[in-house]
Amino acid sequence: MKIKVVENVLKENVRSAREIRARLDEAGVLALNLTSAPGSGKTTLLEATMKALGPEKRAVVLVGDLQTTRDAERLAGGAAEVIQINTGRGCHLSAAQVAEGLDGLTLENVTYLFIENVGNMVCPAGFDLGEHARVVLLSVPEGDDKVAKYPTLFQPADVILLTKIDLLGVLDFDVNRVREDLDRINTRAPLLHLSARTGDGMDGWLEWLGM
Amino acid sequence: MKIKVVENVLKENVRSAREIRARLDEAGVLALNLTSAPGSGKTTLLEATMKALGPEKRAVVLVGDLQTTRDAERLAGGAAEVIQINTGRGCHLSAAQVAEGLDGLTLENVTYLFIENVGNMVCPAGFDLGEHARVVLLSVPEGDDKVAKYPTLFQPADVILLTKIDLLGVLDFDVNRVREDLDRINTRAPLLHLSARTGDGMDGWLEWLGM
Repeated sequence: MKIKVVENVLKENVRSAREIRARLDEAGVLALNLTSAPGSGKTTLLEATMKALGPEKRAVVLVGDLQTTRDAERLAGGAAEVIQINTGRGCHLSAAQVAEGLDGLTLENVTYLFIENVGNMVCPAGFDLGEHARVVLLSVPEGDDKVAKYPTLFQPADVILLTKIDLLGVLDFDVNRVREDLDRINTRAPLLHLSARTGDGMDGWLEWLGM
Repeated sequence: MKIKVVENVLKENVRSAREIRARLDEAGVLALNLTSAPGSGKTTLLEATMKALGPEKRAVVLVGDLQTTRDAERLAGGAAEVIQINTGRGCHLSAAQVAEGLDGLTLENVTYLFIENVGNMVCPAGFDLGEHARVVLLSVPEGDDKVAKYPTLFQPADVILLTKIDLLGVLDFDVNRVREDLDRINTRAPLLHLSARTGDGMDGWLEWLGM
């Protein structure tokens, strides 16, 4: 019985995700789904990314969080439009929530849609949100064992960002261990190093974005 | 239908948790359920705690992770016994899993049972594992906004550990913001500061444990 319910939820999500992708394709918007543990620096990365946007490019953001509008407030300055989705007790965004969020956004002349998922290394992995690419962040303070421990998060990633690299000298963190673990599960996604705080490595990320 | 299923799962969990608590009470074991985001330092804290255990006290550990036995391997040196529970895609431990894990442990002459939950700020909150106290970790690099964003995790905490305080000087982190957010949802639990790496503040934690 339980399995049946879960299957239906996932099937419904896939259908909704497909509709979102078609809608975004028609509007010429590139959608990115950012997932990571809480505190890996998704919002800080987006703040820095907004600042680097040329005047001819516009970005909109959908932010998922259990509670508060703190991330949306932080991003309000840089993005053309920001919508916060509060999931209550839900540990991930669903395609239906993204579809509803999109209804509140103007997609005209928008280049990028950034979807900042709920900070969680487990739940968001299985939910397609209609994005074109999955961006997974891993911050140095979390430790170099996370790829091995949360493979379902890193497997579907199109790009993996090692964030807070300004702490590489302060903390024990073996980048080779991360690379080795990635080699076992995802050889497709590039691993980019950056610190949104110092700006180091941001050029690689912006280049990947096509900016 | 879905709600019904969830209710049954939670009801079954509560029943199982009650049995576990009775079993631990009879054996004279104090059980602690450690929850936090991935990479907040649960395993490092337990490693340091094991080292500080006097010769007359024994601790056993149950470690939950989606995959790998890395945490169990790290803890094997210090604890009397360690059992790793792999949850696959499950984002939290359940009481049933803990009960099964306990079947593999000897509880004779054991003072502490540490249950290291899956690294996740959402899912573990609602699941009683038969513990006597809930320990919630928040590490400095995660940011000072996490109490407001994940209240369901911090609300049931009996003690809150601000970990990695050796990074307070390196990163922007406002401890007062954490205190203010806690004042709104949990005034019962003490907030202890520590760094398991440098040993700073470990005495307060060990004292809280009654060591």
